[in-house]
Amino acid sequence: MLPVIVIHGGAGHIPKERAQLSCAGVREAARGGYGILRASGSAMDAVVEAVTMLENNPAYNAGRGSVLNVKGEVEMDAIVMDGRTLDSGAVSAVRRVANPVQLARLVMEKTKHLCLTAEGASQFARAMGIPEVPEESLITDYARMRWKKNLAPDANPVECQMGKMGTVGAVAVDTEGNVACATSTGGMINKMEGRVGDTPCIGCGGYADNKVGAVSPTGHGEAIMKVTLSRLILFHMEQGRSAEEASDLGLAYMKERVQGLGGVVTVDPKGAWAARFSSLQMAWAAVQDEQLHYGLYAGEHFTESAQEQS
Amino acid sequence: MLPVIVIHGGAGHIPKERAQLSCAGVREAARGGYGILRASGSAMDAVVEAVTMLENNPAYNAGRGSVLNVKGEVEMDAIVMDGRTLDSGAVSAVRRVANPVQLARLVMEKTKHLCLTAEGASQFARAMGIPEVPEESLITDYARMRWKKNLAPDANPVECQMGKMGTVGAVAVDTEGNVACATSTGGMINKMEGRVGDTPCIGCGGYADNKVGAVSPTGHGEAIMKVTLSRLILFHMEQGRSAEEASDLGLAYMKERVQGLGGVVTVDPKGAWAARFSSLQMAWAAVQDEQLHYGLYAGEHFTESAQEQS
Repeated sequence: MLPVIVIHGGAGHIPKERAQLSCAGVREAARGGYGILRASGSAMDAVVEAVTMLENNPAYNAGRGSVLNVKGEVEMDAIVMDGRTLDSGAVSAVRRVANPVQLARLVMEKTKHLCLTAEGASQFARAMGIPEVPEESLITDYARMRWKKNLAPDANPVECQMGKMGTVGAVAVDTEGNVACATSTGGMINKMEGRVGDTPCIGCGGYADNKVGAVSPTGHGEAIMKVTLSRLILFHMEQGRSAEEASDLGLAYMKERVQGLGGVVTVDPKGAWAARFSSLQMAWAAVQDEQLHYGLYAGEHFTESAQEQS
Repeated sequence: MLPVIVIHGGAGHIPKERAQLSCAGVREAARGGYGILRASGSAMDAVVEAVTMLENNPAYNAGRGSVLNVKGEVEMDAIVMDGRTLDSGAVSAVRRVANPVQLARLVMEKTKHLCLTAEGASQFARAMGIPEVPEESLITDYARMRWKKNLAPDANPVECQMGKMGTVGAVAVDTEGNVACATSTGGMINKMEGRVGDTPCIGCGGYADNKVGAVSPTGHGEAIMKVTLSRLILFHMEQGRSAEEASDLGLAYMKERVQGLGGVVTVDPKGAWAARFSSLQMAWAAVQDEQLHYGLYAGEHFTESAQEQS
């Protein structure tokens, strides 16, 4: 059954004209990450590759395409976690880097810390030789349009809900049974400067443990934090629930206890996987046994050969 | 049995000449917080009052007395959580505020977010009318001496271990059975600029849920994060373990799985409480039924009237 990779491109309400792009990107990223697993690469390499592809794709709220904070600036959060050792790396409110997920991985590998924030994260990026990119290169016309629209006094709450859409994430199991997760986001549209959401917070924006599995969530960040959603789902799996049952239990609890919607991708170390959500939509894709699985609305599950181009 | 408050002043190795100060401060803070509970104040009011007292006391690594980062600067982290609603507020890498725990509470009460970091947190403090204090006012001679000592190429690892000491925290149950937690820290001595530890990370540096209990931890921040220690202990309590058993299970797991030492204070909603640690020492104090309990080394448990001055 091994290996497997499962990707999400964010939960929420995805405008019709963006749905096609959003679905195409996660399928491409799932194929990209699976290519690494098929060549006996590590789960960590696969999730970082997949999330990097989505950060580079302007259709998502991560890296290029990130939503803007209330001042019209880009501040990004990312996390990775390695299920072998429980090692993790994260960055919060980082600016002017193209791939926050790669910086998060460097925090894990090159420092004694698990998280660096804001200017400290930028300094570390410079020390690691990561080029600083102009802020403009991360901002799309679409992001700027939504920022302006949400500043208006008569801003439409549906537009605001769309702002919760587009966080990207991946979980994988490699041929050796190691699990890993990665999540990256521009956060919540028109957020306060310095707002840190669930993504860089271990146990909230991701968790990976070879003994249990791995989770990457998306949705209303503050709700995910209140229930420590990733860790909660893995606790249910430790109690004997399947990846799918545990994901549904975690999402139902978040909805009932703190009225939060979202979605998750989840794997267990044997390669069982789930892509579940309580929001209207979540763009997701998975590859296992050379089959590509994907969907957008609840109940959708399409399958095609992973080799096919679509 | 209700109400109760339990305080810690950090786990680790406390130098002899500091032990007396450290023990006196937690007893005073426990009495201060209990005064609020006795007058039917909320658990949230009590933990914030107790942690504020410890931030103002230069004997601890929080507020005034914080350890310095590698550049000789003070960057502080704090969190609060309200067990009634799972609402939480946190600040990370914040500078030039006297009481980060009060700023964390304002994040919870006055924003839609759960965490603000670095310059964004400072901006919010200014907007709330919190006076900016000179960095020098937060730095003690002792903190500067340790910073210099640890910069030396022959720095003694025992000194480094001391650097993990002194995070402060409190958990409480009020007369209505509501639980809350608060934690505040200057972090790890000679940390990188922008390093975020466990404290502002929900589920790691604290968690509170009226249905289960509340935890505030101290110790090696990165280890606490890897096992999401606070949430882990509360999961054990959800499975039927007592506050003391759950605390010991969580600490033992952290030691075995990621070789991390630390300590916790824990309460359940009925007022059962624990102060447990795997480190050599942890300064702790609790007040319940007009009795003050306190200790420093494993197995120590002194009791006196809460009215007595000592």
